[in-house]
Amino acid sequence: MDKTAKFPSELRFDLVSKDWVVIATGRARRPETFRREKRVTEEVRQPSCPFCKMEEQGTPVLVFAEGKKILLSNGLPKNWTTVVIPNKYPAFIPSYELNTKIEGNLYQTMNAVGFHEVVVTRDHKKSLAQLSPERIKEVFDVYQERYLKLMKENFINYISIFHNHGKEAGASMAHPHSQIITTPLIDSDLKKSLSNAQKYFRTNKKCIYCAMDDWEIESKKRVIFENEEFIAVCPFASKTAFEVIVSPKKHLFRFEEITEKEKRLLAEAFGIALKKLYYALNDPAYNFYLHTAPCDGKNYNFYHWHWTILPKTATWAGFELGTQMEISTIAPEQAAEFLRQK
Amino acid sequence: MDKTAKFPSELRFDLVSKDWVVIATGRARRPETFRREKRVTEEVRQPSCPFCKMEEQGTPVLVFAEGKKILLSNGLPKNWTTVVIPNKYPAFIPSYELNTKIEGNLYQTMNAVGFHEVVVTRDHKKSLAQLSPERIKEVFDVYQERYLKLMKENFINYISIFHNHGKEAGASMAHPHSQIITTPLIDSDLKKSLSNAQKYFRTNKKCIYCAMDDWEIESKKRVIFENEEFIAVCPFASKTAFEVIVSPKKHLFRFEEITEKEKRLLAEAFGIALKKLYYALNDPAYNFYLHTAPCDGKNYNFYHWHWTILPKTATWAGFELGTQMEISTIAPEQAAEFLRQK
Repeated sequence: MDKTAKFPSELRFDLVSKDWVVIATGRARRPETFRREKRVTEEVRQPSCPFCKMEEQGTPVLVFAEGKKILLSNGLPKNWTTVVIPNKYPAFIPSYELNTKIEGNLYQTMNAVGFHEVVVTRDHKKSLAQLSPERIKEVFDVYQERYLKLMKENFINYISIFHNHGKEAGASMAHPHSQIITTPLIDSDLKKSLSNAQKYFRTNKKCIYCAMDDWEIESKKRVIFENEEFIAVCPFASKTAFEVIVSPKKHLFRFEEITEKEKRLLAEAFGIALKKLYYALNDPAYNFYLHTAPCDGKNYNFYHWHWTILPKTATWAGFELGTQMEISTIAPEQAAEFLRQK
Repeated sequence: MDKTAKFPSELRFDLVSKDWVVIATGRARRPETFRREKRVTEEVRQPSCPFCKMEEQGTPVLVFAEGKKILLSNGLPKNWTTVVIPNKYPAFIPSYELNTKIEGNLYQTMNAVGFHEVVVTRDHKKSLAQLSPERIKEVFDVYQERYLKLMKENFINYISIFHNHGKEAGASMAHPHSQIITTPLIDSDLKKSLSNAQKYFRTNKKCIYCAMDDWEIESKKRVIFENEEFIAVCPFASKTAFEVIVSPKKHLFRFEEITEKEKRLLAEAFGIALKKLYYALNDPAYNFYLHTAPCDGKNYNFYHWHWTILPKTATWAGFELGTQMEISTIAPEQAAEFLRQK
């Protein structure tokens, strides 16, 4: 253990909450740059969008063109539709070692080993909600491909796939893109959910998500769309107004094992959920992310993967930050009713 | 237990994370109102500010004028400096009963019993950072007074005191104000911190916060200010860039027991921390909140109260929402160095 090394990007352990935080000094900004700045409109940034000049971005990690995977040795084809490139300012950085250090016999630090990639769809102006089901399926193809590759690398225990749309939702670039970040640990929040899901499974011989989905299908009031394999629901304990969860009806706990048929039906359900939000909330800013079984080699057959879509309808303020209890100002049943009509 | 009752404001239990969320249907907005709206500048709202017409707000709960508590029977004095009024759109609502209901043999709901108050300082344009130490102490006087009163009410197990400054930090009114919300339960996040603090206390015969403060004072690198009784630190595992924690050097676990002298010194340390942030970040939006021992009658002598100030330097996006691991782009040591110079 090296007690002095500086890491280009660090994870730090909070002794009280037992949460880990990332200190990405590798992408550090000078303190002055945190000063409040004028709002840059998305229009201003568009002409100089680097994702619109993909040929200048170096070798991509993965390329799809009109639904087909393209061999990288052939370079970037003219008709590319979705590509994956490394993030230029990664929060997690590949390394041959996972090192820890201790400060003051108290504080623990670990280097933030991992990969940080960006998934870019071609059209600058078309958000995911506006893409065809085929292009949305392609995005899931890409997520799965990268997941299957990255999970084989060292020090990867969790893979976070997420998407930020709109400045208010933290998207720093207007061009539609998702991100994939691998982490050497499982965050305490997911750990808590895994542990609670496991307890429920042991007690009830049933997956907690399956139990909830069964009730949602029976009661109907919070379902906004369903097809043969997937269900889109405004969850009972929604964390934000208009939260939508898209999950498989079957008990599936590893997203990376999704089949072709399931991907097609997921793309349908997911695309419809996004379109409903688009029309209901006038192209709202939103985040979505995947929760799936960690890839740390353990058995998580009690879990159930799902995608969470969180429209940015409010700002977390002092109460939410201090208590982690979110105040949502619309009941999910009302939100679901409104979305069903769209 | 009533299975059908509708509550004007509800707490809902998430089966997976075991978190509680608030569904404030009592302050519900129609779905259409969630549509993206144009930014309303603070200037526009000022002339019609209700907090500037305090005499129209009905009977206040508590009034201070130039450092002195005023008897309510005397009405609102002309020279009032800080008042407490009930929130017109409360998320928690007083009730004689704490009721629960179950949906689908699965989902648990409880009415959000409690109080929701607003603490208003007189000057529309002067944020807390711009107030004198005397006026800041008065705000702490008010917090303590209300805490001592509210903790005696029924169904109150935790009291959250917080302040939002600036639209980006979720402040819906430009006029400086804090809020006090009482909750009938202790949120799972604080529970986790309490449990971890207790474990540390049992193992090390020492408070975890005292251990951290001792090391911060010794190592100096993250301290931005200290006086006889208080220390202001950019914490080792800062959750956001420029996070500042202000805590008593003595092992104190009940904020409501703060003495006159301690309040004076807290006001000094807190005011200086806010001023440093004001100058360093050009009047940033921020939230601050108190974490203190719950008032549920149990013993929390292993805890240590503290105020957390979180400047709004970034937006939580998909990664943070999905993993609860925050990515901060400046190390707290750098942030502290910058703040020390201000």
